[in-house]
Amino acid sequence: MKTKISDRSLGLNFNSSGTAEVLLWAPFAKQVELLVGGKAVANLEQGEQGYWKIITGDLKPGDQYKFRLDGVKQFPDPTSLSQPEGVHGPSEAVDLAGFTWEDQDWKNIPLKEYILYELHTGTFTQEGTFEGIESKLSYLKDLGVNAIELMPLAQFPGNRNWGYDGVQPFSVQNSYGGARELQKLIDACHAKGIAVIVDVVYNHLGPEGNYLGDFGPYFTDKYHTPWGNAINFDDSGCDGVRRYFIENALMWFRDFHVDALRLDAVHAIKDFSPVHIVQELKMRVNELMEKTGRRHYLIAELDLNDNRFINPLDQHGYGMDAQWLDEFHHALRVTAGGEPTGYYSDFNGISHLAKSYKDAYVYDGQFSPHRNKTFGVKADHNPGEQFVVFSQNHDHIGNRMLGERSSQLMGFEMQKVMAAAVICSPFLPMLFMGEEWSETNPFLYFVSHTDPQLAEAVRKGRKAEFAAFQSSAEAPDPMAEDTFGRSKLQWELLNMEPHQTMFNYYRQLIALRKNHPVLKDLNRKQLSVQHNEEKKVLILRRWNDE
Amino acid sequence: MKTKISDRSLGLNFNSSGTAEVLLWAPFAKQVELLVGGKAVANLEQGEQGYWKIITGDLKPGDQYKFRLDGVKQFPDPTSLSQPEGVHGPSEAVDLAGFTWEDQDWKNIPLKEYILYELHTGTFTQEGTFEGIESKLSYLKDLGVNAIELMPLAQFPGNRNWGYDGVQPFSVQNSYGGARELQKLIDACHAKGIAVIVDVVYNHLGPEGNYLGDFGPYFTDKYHTPWGNAINFDDSGCDGVRRYFIENALMWFRDFHVDALRLDAVHAIKDFSPVHIVQELKMRVNELMEKTGRRHYLIAELDLNDNRFINPLDQHGYGMDAQWLDEFHHALRVTAGGEPTGYYSDFNGISHLAKSYKDAYVYDGQFSPHRNKTFGVKADHNPGEQFVVFSQNHDHIGNRMLGERSSQLMGFEMQKVMAAAVICSPFLPMLFMGEEWSETNPFLYFVSHTDPQLAEAVRKGRKAEFAAFQSSAEAPDPMAEDTFGRSKLQWELLNMEPHQTMFNYYRQLIALRKNHPVLKDLNRKQLSVQHNEEKKVLILRRWNDE
Repeated sequence: MKTKISDRSLGLNFNSSGTAEVLLWAPFAKQVELLVGGKAVANLEQGEQGYWKIITGDLKPGDQYKFRLDGVKQFPDPTSLSQPEGVHGPSEAVDLAGFTWEDQDWKNIPLKEYILYELHTGTFTQEGTFEGIESKLSYLKDLGVNAIELMPLAQFPGNRNWGYDGVQPFSVQNSYGGARELQKLIDACHAKGIAVIVDVVYNHLGPEGNYLGDFGPYFTDKYHTPWGNAINFDDSGCDGVRRYFIENALMWFRDFHVDALRLDAVHAIKDFSPVHIVQELKMRVNELMEKTGRRHYLIAELDLNDNRFINPLDQHGYGMDAQWLDEFHHALRVTAGGEPTGYYSDFNGISHLAKSYKDAYVYDGQFSPHRNKTFGVKADHNPGEQFVVFSQNHDHIGNRMLGERSSQLMGFEMQKVMAAAVICSPFLPMLFMGEEWSETNPFLYFVSHTDPQLAEAVRKGRKAEFAAFQSSAEAPDPMAEDTFGRSKLQWELLNMEPHQTMFNYYRQLIALRKNHPVLKDLNRKQLSVQHNEEKKVLILRRWNDE
Repeated sequence: MKTKISDRSLGLNFNSSGTAEVLLWAPFAKQVELLVGGKAVANLEQGEQGYWKIITGDLKPGDQYKFRLDGVKQFPDPTSLSQPEGVHGPSEAVDLAGFTWEDQDWKNIPLKEYILYELHTGTFTQEGTFEGIESKLSYLKDLGVNAIELMPLAQFPGNRNWGYDGVQPFSVQNSYGGARELQKLIDACHAKGIAVIVDVVYNHLGPEGNYLGDFGPYFTDKYHTPWGNAINFDDSGCDGVRRYFIENALMWFRDFHVDALRLDAVHAIKDFSPVHIVQELKMRVNELMEKTGRRHYLIAELDLNDNRFINPLDQHGYGMDAQWLDEFHHALRVTAGGEPTGYYSDFNGISHLAKSYKDAYVYDGQFSPHRNKTFGVKADHNPGEQFVVFSQNHDHIGNRMLGERSSQLMGFEMQKVMAAAVICSPFLPMLFMGEEWSETNPFLYFVSHTDPQLAEAVRKGRKAEFAAFQSSAEAPDPMAEDTFGRSKLQWELLNMEPHQTMFNYYRQLIALRKNHPVLKDLNRKQLSVQHNEEKKVLILRRWNDE
């Protein structure tokens, strides 16, 4: 069965006459019952290739429902749009078409003009909700960023999580406000001229509440990832899995008016098919754009220095519009005095930073001691707008035991230098929420698993990870509510010094980038970099002949 | 370190003054001693990236040597050229340059003219040696084939094995005659105008005598193959592994004058690097060809219907010259009355055979029930000479419990029809030894592991594999010498009927293909196929407008 482009076809949908149509992929099942309000109301009819169907008047928006497989186990809908009681509870019937959009005049911003701002919904404001974000849109507009990147929104266990433990890719986290509130937020962003990027995770599912394996062959033991068995994109039964994730991406664009997706850890998506899943995704997104006339971007987190992912489809690439450039970050941090340990150990500081300005990839064919192999290819022909750069992000802050931001690690002036290094680069700059006022709170690793055994395992794992540091400090408990609370932004700092100064600096730097004829043109050719290791000086020159 | 093109650099080599130079990749070792005749004669010197070196006068051609790692375990050389006492014994120093070639005038045959003949050295003749093959070259010449394909020659445990349990990729099986005898055979083939293809296994190593994992990270648990952990082509430490296999391929071409390699099960080579290992191999072989002026082909066994493997390098392909086309075989067998079970179950017979004549791949974007996924891409632009076809081969015969050839399964006339189907195709035809006289002996699965536990496991595994067949016959014991003996060709049949008739038929059919202006031109465009399912008729028309 082919993915439908123009409408959501998987899961529960209400047709034009308001009747529920359910299409469930459950090839492992021999019988599937629909339970509404805890009671079995109907059997789904078995179709081809493991798809089960029903058209029923017994399911209305707002109803809670589950599926019972083979008369035994009950599960929420794998394509649920709402989980009001969390990952283990029933799904809630939602009519996505019920929202009235007012963004008809919105046009996505050209990618090369994107100024990205990564934020975590739960800690961005005290409320920790989409409504909270909405209350800050004028602030963001004033700062000058024009694309907010929301860390993953898929339903995760409990109320506190970075989002990478999501288990229901179609369901918007209930504690953030759910699907309707997200639609409202995006509509409001578009009214303000702000694009919305959503971070989606297509390389693994979280460890709690992951019931996909009961429905079908969503996972394969052919490949291992850091998070266990890989998602099955090329093994027996993969057609249904590929469709599931492609329909997910299309949903964000079509039904939520999302402007861009950030695909998490694309290097952990294992797929030897003739057409890689992200390549197929790009093809389907192209079809959608042709149909709607709207423009959407795909941005990959990619740890491979392999530009086949970002090369155009007609050059046998996978067609991703852009990728994160972590190597720029690593080189910049070491240049700024960060310790070259762990994944920083491959970076020597200023000369690698110079290389990244020139070549994007620092390792583009050299031996990498940390990876213990020759790594990367040249990316000479990929334009600057294909690379997202940053001086900090959720990952590199949160990977630290104490989650310190630059504000706690670097001097005030060095923070400004790093901001300029990013914002004056010929790449797409990205800020991490709060860095623009030198937020002093950490961004810690936090979870709220409801499975006590898992919670304990995560707690122990985190302690063990940092045991070798022999620091006097102890790793904060990821399960503690306080760990989450301490990671929230302190907006009141904005009225204090030196935070106000930093904010004004960022605002002017962003304005400069947007308005200066050289800085706003992401020309990688009209650029020179000189550096002096001893004097710790790097001179970046950019010009524009036209 | 870069692979050297013009000379063998890994392992033991004798320089121009006859002195032994040893280069060993052993990144896991802290100390490496060279043992000659059982005695430690020197310590190797540690170089960069896990390479160890020594230049020594203590090692002469004919000497037996081992390496001792960290003062404890002794192993044969991973790049040994000779294992006179088998896989567990010492390596023998061989000077490959010591052979005097007389094939200076030899030019590889154009690929499109190849008529392939697959043979297993151990069962082709009573002697089971390279010398045995040499005694049959006039016969093969008379038959009309011009390229013999030798099943794997790398040293395997014991004396009897198909070859896919090889553990020393650089060492020529001692019971076949070893490296020198192989050089002699190839020289003799070239004198007769016959090309030589060697089957090499770069996707796994056999289960007995595999000591590579003691030297370095040759394997990775990132991927699983049917034979356990995959060979490490893209994980930490892979540079040394990639070099090892690339040098292996170069050795066959450069030092043994091999004309083509058949790369076993390329689909099981897991490599997500920007440059796939077979693509890199093709680049290195191109360099070698440029240097020597000789032409060499790479032919992949490929179960992916993914023509990126056979597309040219400049079209982002991996550049393999050709691939095996098992789907043609499957469709042909079902057409000829073979039971559509197991991997044949995807094939409906005559209409799939017609599709393969037209499109090469039968599945080129359709749902495959047996694989339970949509499978394959179109191969419209790949010329006929990129596909090797056959009506039987070692695998599909030996996969049967009783190893029956077509002679035992099909009538005499049907065997002739199948031969014509293959030889009149616009693809490269391949015979399996003995089919040209309708050999009646089976080709059974046989091994001769010396590890009793492993031997028992293989025996049990083979029985279990066929337990479901509920046949009255029992699976022959793969360890029994008789299982090997019964698989040998009976050359005396050639003087009897109906075998002589079949031989003459094959000989004339091959001559027709080589001489007929239409048949010798592998034009996939000037071809039409009509078929009638009910009447079981397929009409293949080929023409040549020029």
